Amino acid sequence: MDERIREHARTLVEWSARVEAGDDVVVSVGMDAHELGVAVAEQLGEKGATPVFTYSSGELTRAYRLAHDGAFEAADHELALYENADVVLSLRGGRNTSATADVPSETRQQAARAEQAVREARMNTDWVSTVHPNRSLAQQAGMAFEEYQQFAYDAIVRDWEDLAERMALVKDVLDEGSDVRLVTADTDLTMSIENRVAVNSAASVAYDSHNLPSGEVFTAPHATEGEVLFDVPMTLNGQRVRDVHLTFEDGVVVDYSAGQNESVLTEIVETDDGARRLGELGIGMNRGIDRFTDNILFDEKMGDTVHLALGRAYGSNFPEGHEDEANESAVHADLITDVSEDSRMEVDGEVVQRDGVFWFEDGF
Amino acid sequence: MDERIREHARTLVEWSARVEAGDDVVVSVGMDAHELGVAVAEQLGEKGATPVFTYSSGELTRAYRLAHDGAFEAADHELALYENADVVLSLRGGRNTSATADVPSETRQQAARAEQAVREARMNTDWVSTVHPNRSLAQQAGMAFEEYQQFAYDAIVRDWEDLAERMALVKDVLDEGSDVRLVTADTDLTMSIENRVAVNSAASVAYDSHNLPSGEVFTAPHATEGEVLFDVPMTLNGQRVRDVHLTFEDGVVVDYSAGQNESVLTEIVETDDGARRLGELGIGMNRGIDRFTDNILFDEKMGDTVHLALGRAYGSNFPEGHEDEANESAVHADLITDVSEDSRMEVDGEVVQRDGVFWFEDGF
Repeated sequence: MDERIREHARTLVEWSARVEAGDDVVVSVGMDAHELGVAVAEQLGEKGATPVFTYSSGELTRAYRLAHDGAFEAADHELALYENADVVLSLRGGRNTSATADVPSETRQQAARAEQAVREARMNTDWVSTVHPNRSLAQQAGMAFEEYQQFAYDAIVRDWEDLAERMALVKDVLDEGSDVRLVTADTDLTMSIENRVAVNSAASVAYDSHNLPSGEVFTAPHATEGEVLFDVPMTLNGQRVRDVHLTFEDGVVVDYSAGQNESVLTEIVETDDGARRLGELGIGMNRGIDRFTDNILFDEKMGDTVHLALGRAYGSNFPEGHEDEANESAVHADLITDVSEDSRMEVDGEVVQRDGVFWFEDGF
Repeated sequence: MDERIREHARTLVEWSARVEAGDDVVVSVGMDAHELGVAVAEQLGEKGATPVFTYSSGELTRAYRLAHDGAFEAADHELALYENADVVLSLRGGRNTSATADVPSETRQQAARAEQAVREARMNTDWVSTVHPNRSLAQQAGMAFEEYQQFAYDAIVRDWEDLAERMALVKDVLDEGSDVRLVTADTDLTMSIENRVAVNSAASVAYDSHNLPSGEVFTAPHATEGEVLFDVPMTLNGQRVRDVHLTFEDGVVVDYSAGQNESVLTEIVETDDGARRLGELGIGMNRGIDRFTDNILFDEKMGDTVHLALGRAYGSNFPEGHEDEANESAVHADLITDVSEDSRMEVDGEVVQRDGVFWFEDGF
């Protein structure tokens, strides 16, 4: 076995999910994530945990949903599985990222409603999602397979403890601050982060962070004013969207445009009231990620980037008892801007990041 | 999709498992059974059943068991899954039939003990096991892949209703009869089947038959006398065994030999007291199976064959309330003899099968 796969599994089981002896674990194995499944099985054996392996394939999901009449029912047996699980590890990786492309969105929504209870039970476990770098994901990234493997392991197999300490510095500044200003050549945006709690997303359930890789600090801004250009191309609703430009007044999008597929942006902002407000401000701090690969799990964590999401906010960004104040929306659309050049971020008027470099880093 | 895969899935879901709308189904998908998984997902969608897909791979099992210290624990979450399931469909098919070859037998036994409750919960569902014909199984059979596919679908996609009716004739004769005599060039064996119930194993839970393909009628003989030669090679305990010869007196093996790997036979008959008695007499009636492929799921169902098993008997062969009279043993070793030539089977002195042909068939 490629030793990097074993390191990935060890990072997932030990750092991310904090698996202990006796834990009942569900491992969801993607069709093309088998090798990582073997490595995770080995780690779980070493820990003395007890796994059930489930199979995740867009092709099976598609076949089932297309053949069904749409009156999907709740899965009592699946619910029982997750209600009795301590940990859920999702090893993503199919052979075709478009495997469910022809499932009508109405069918998706019907199925999602029936799966609500199972989804909530899964979220009540120590769950972590990761991806096994495979040829399908390499293709999506426009990279050779071996090149993509190295890219992915650089992002995943890291000194997470060290990164968590650096991210804690940024979290502290956001927790103490009230106003954030982001300035680039085409952006000048101010947001309030008063009464918000930043999350140090260090790829571990111990940090309330459920993705591997991670490496961002995020909060839930409000009272947004100004304009912002997102110069990183994104796939939204299955379509490539470029150069999204948003203008905010009093926290709400009052004007928007995109250089490509603007209609997707229209769909998003017209979903509901919450879709015109920001749900997230995220600061990418994973310097193991050195390029955009059209995969949000990696793109939004990249060092030298800042992302904002239209729509739903996370309850974890609110003080205890105030989680229900989070912006509500059926969408959460992440948009990314490159801050490596001609940029600065200020918190209460103090520059904390300039041209991608934080105040505590060399070269600031 | 190959239309035969769809037919296989339809046979499994409709004829074998009798899946109905609202059923909670667990589908175990082997690493190399993905295509059948897609077809089964489609059938379950059409039925309006609710599936959970689990992943079955000898490679994951091996990695887990070898890394574990051996003190395996019961899986509460897996137990909850099966206790809440109506139907379990196992789609077998790995990429290497020897995937767990180096797991010590002690480790296997430790794991099996921890899985006892889960196994029982699974047996309490309408469970059916089948195999997806793949390259690994073709290799085991010594056949080309396309040749093996056709072989497997000939055995699986059949007019099961018609075969069930023919098998019912044989079941009736066995249920009414008291003594069976099997005679070939090297065999003359008499067995009592008094107070036994024959099972019409028609590949459907409606017939208490849980394998697809099936196609045998079996009962639990006792008071065996005489000698028998099994001329079909078998893989027992991972080794190839040929020309097993057994001599019975008063129901017990008093002499045995094998033309190859006799030590495996010694291991089996010395396991426990029950291992020296017969647990099963099975009459193969699936004429879709035209050759031996070193896979018991197919071999013992082949038309023109009779098999006997040393060891454990099935409770289903005993009248209600008498299931505990079944021969007990830790082993159930099937041995097969070819009856296509120079053979006859008598029930209470009446010939019911001659040279493989039954009394109700043309050419008898």
